[in-house]
Amino acid sequence: MAAIPYRRLFGPGPCNAYPEALMALQQPLLGHLDPAFIAMTDRVCDGLRMVWQTQNRYTLAMSGTGMSGMEAAFANVVTPGDVVVVGVNGFFAERQVDLAQRMGAEVIRVDFPWGQPIDPEAVATAHPNPTVIAAVHAETSTGVRSDIAALGALKGEALLLVDAVTSLGGIEVAVDAWGVDIAYSGTQKCLGTPPGLAPFTMSERAYQRRNPRPHSFYLDISLMGAYVGATQGPARAYHHTASSVMYAALDATLARLATEGLENVWARHQAAGDRFQAGLQDMGLELFAADGYRLPELTTIKVPEGVDSARVRAFLLSEYDIEIGAGVKDLASTVWRVGLMGANATTASVTLLLGALQDALQRA
Amino acid sequence: MAAIPYRRLFGPGPCNAYPEALMALQQPLLGHLDPAFIAMTDRVCDGLRMVWQTQNRYTLAMSGTGMSGMEAAFANVVTPGDVVVVGVNGFFAERQVDLAQRMGAEVIRVDFPWGQPIDPEAVATAHPNPTVIAAVHAETSTGVRSDIAALGALKGEALLLVDAVTSLGGIEVAVDAWGVDIAYSGTQKCLGTPPGLAPFTMSERAYQRRNPRPHSFYLDISLMGAYVGATQGPARAYHHTASSVMYAALDATLARLATEGLENVWARHQAAGDRFQAGLQDMGLELFAADGYRLPELTTIKVPEGVDSARVRAFLLSEYDIEIGAGVKDLASTVWRVGLMGANATTASVTLLLGALQDALQRA
Repeated sequence: MAAIPYRRLFGPGPCNAYPEALMALQQPLLGHLDPAFIAMTDRVCDGLRMVWQTQNRYTLAMSGTGMSGMEAAFANVVTPGDVVVVGVNGFFAERQVDLAQRMGAEVIRVDFPWGQPIDPEAVATAHPNPTVIAAVHAETSTGVRSDIAALGALKGEALLLVDAVTSLGGIEVAVDAWGVDIAYSGTQKCLGTPPGLAPFTMSERAYQRRNPRPHSFYLDISLMGAYVGATQGPARAYHHTASSVMYAALDATLARLATEGLENVWARHQAAGDRFQAGLQDMGLELFAADGYRLPELTTIKVPEGVDSARVRAFLLSEYDIEIGAGVKDLASTVWRVGLMGANATTASVTLLLGALQDALQRA
Repeated sequence: MAAIPYRRLFGPGPCNAYPEALMALQQPLLGHLDPAFIAMTDRVCDGLRMVWQTQNRYTLAMSGTGMSGMEAAFANVVTPGDVVVVGVNGFFAERQVDLAQRMGAEVIRVDFPWGQPIDPEAVATAHPNPTVIAAVHAETSTGVRSDIAALGALKGEALLLVDAVTSLGGIEVAVDAWGVDIAYSGTQKCLGTPPGLAPFTMSERAYQRRNPRPHSFYLDISLMGAYVGATQGPARAYHHTASSVMYAALDATLARLATEGLENVWARHQAAGDRFQAGLQDMGLELFAADGYRLPELTTIKVPEGVDSARVRAFLLSEYDIEIGAGVKDLASTVWRVGLMGANATTASVTLLLGALQDALQRA
């Protein structure tokens, strides 16, 4: 049996989890209909309302990773033949296109260069009457933030569907104030919790216009809603065997974030990202994401001319136990992706990363 | 904050996990493309081949609970218009009907009384040329075992799709020998691991006849196969952020089962179940499942005349921290479901349960 490595997870996610979340994994298992577990799901749904900044009744965690959240979003609001407009500026927006097509939608894509944000006006006016407008808040493939509030102001009758996988718990996400109708995230990025649940929220407006019988049973919002008590009716209808281990971890994280204060959490991510990005530029490295739209929690760096991207990553892994990410698709060997998320959004992480990168550029 | 209860999980699942699985939850997180994680997924897939008793290349864990496994099974082999025959003798076979319908199948159901096994011949001859024949090996709602080997011998050209949620790791499941084409399970029953992964296996024959573009991206077997290395092609294509926490737990369980020996594990479940069922009858209680088809790992008991089912369950929970299950649907108040699964399939569990039940019948 090989030695178990302790990885410093500075890739695009997962990140190292908050200690509270790790400790909570040891909480004894609970059945999925145990009164103590029901109380836990209530706390988790309330905590998620806090981080999503929403009053939405249908705010819960899907029992899968962030990708299951994306699938749940499209499965529950798209019916075959619906028009779905997608602002495409990266890999995860491409996935939104794929998901919408699998649900039978007529997809209208509005493309932007990778590394740039979407233009809300161009997306909002791409079709006179779309059922859904979809976009990615924080593109994990490029490190770019798009203006979801502006898109919300222009959405008209459409439902606004947003990927917040790399933003929730790291930068502001204001579901109600921005007019977001459906949003999903994962636990393993800025929320600093092991992967396995997908925070999800849906406005009343979206719920009323949902697909009443989606292909997916597992992610059907009306069944999940009945399970967590969002839907009126007989209490806690069995739907699936939710993992009390995962809920306990998320419960502990949400309590920690409430104590730290959400705005302080965002400020911590911003400070770490600013410091890191300034340090990289001081080292003479160039950033990939457009200036003014850079995510603090996920930095994209251009691999310098003549440097072997994979070799640097392998050096960091073997010498430092540090994971950073390669670029995605066309950017695979020309961009690195470095995350400072959750428990890793600290000054210590920044200093270690800058030093390790400097070392790698000299020695790898 | 309320005190954290330590529950003895003798319901229909989850059960208390094996200590190896619980300890493994503390293993430091790994990225989903880390070499150490890839080695772990390889071990898990190999271990699952051992418990499924199969050589299937497409043997892996879906990143969701057992229900996601059921959804993956139907999503990957059913195309709209396909004929799906389902042998229905309980709640989870009803779910198979629901799933097949959601995928657009023409469903032919062959019904049997709850508490009885399916008749393989009646199911196999219900349609001259079905695409899929589906059945539940161990019905969690009734405690009944059906003869899957017999159904496999009669399946003809159809694909045989089997729910093994409550059988895998507790009683024999022989995928290759029985001619099963697609099967799914959960980790939290006889495998004695916290919920969160769905063991899944698919024959080459089923893979060749799969739906090439299922509605579900999350559960798409060709994408999942590329991720775990079952599909030829570029190594380990990113699909989703699998949870190293959950994999570590399952990895540890599978290593334990290999050490104990699969036949010894089955014998332990059989011995506990036999002893428990004999003890119940000695107490004058009646069993619900048909004699000769009773699962050792899940016992269904008729609630005696004049006894309040819910009151007994509440007493066990408050006085003993013991969870047992109510019946399902029409059996809600007339049947109890008691599981002796995984780490709980022991003589100590049986003696505690019999004593606690006796106490509850006198004092609740």
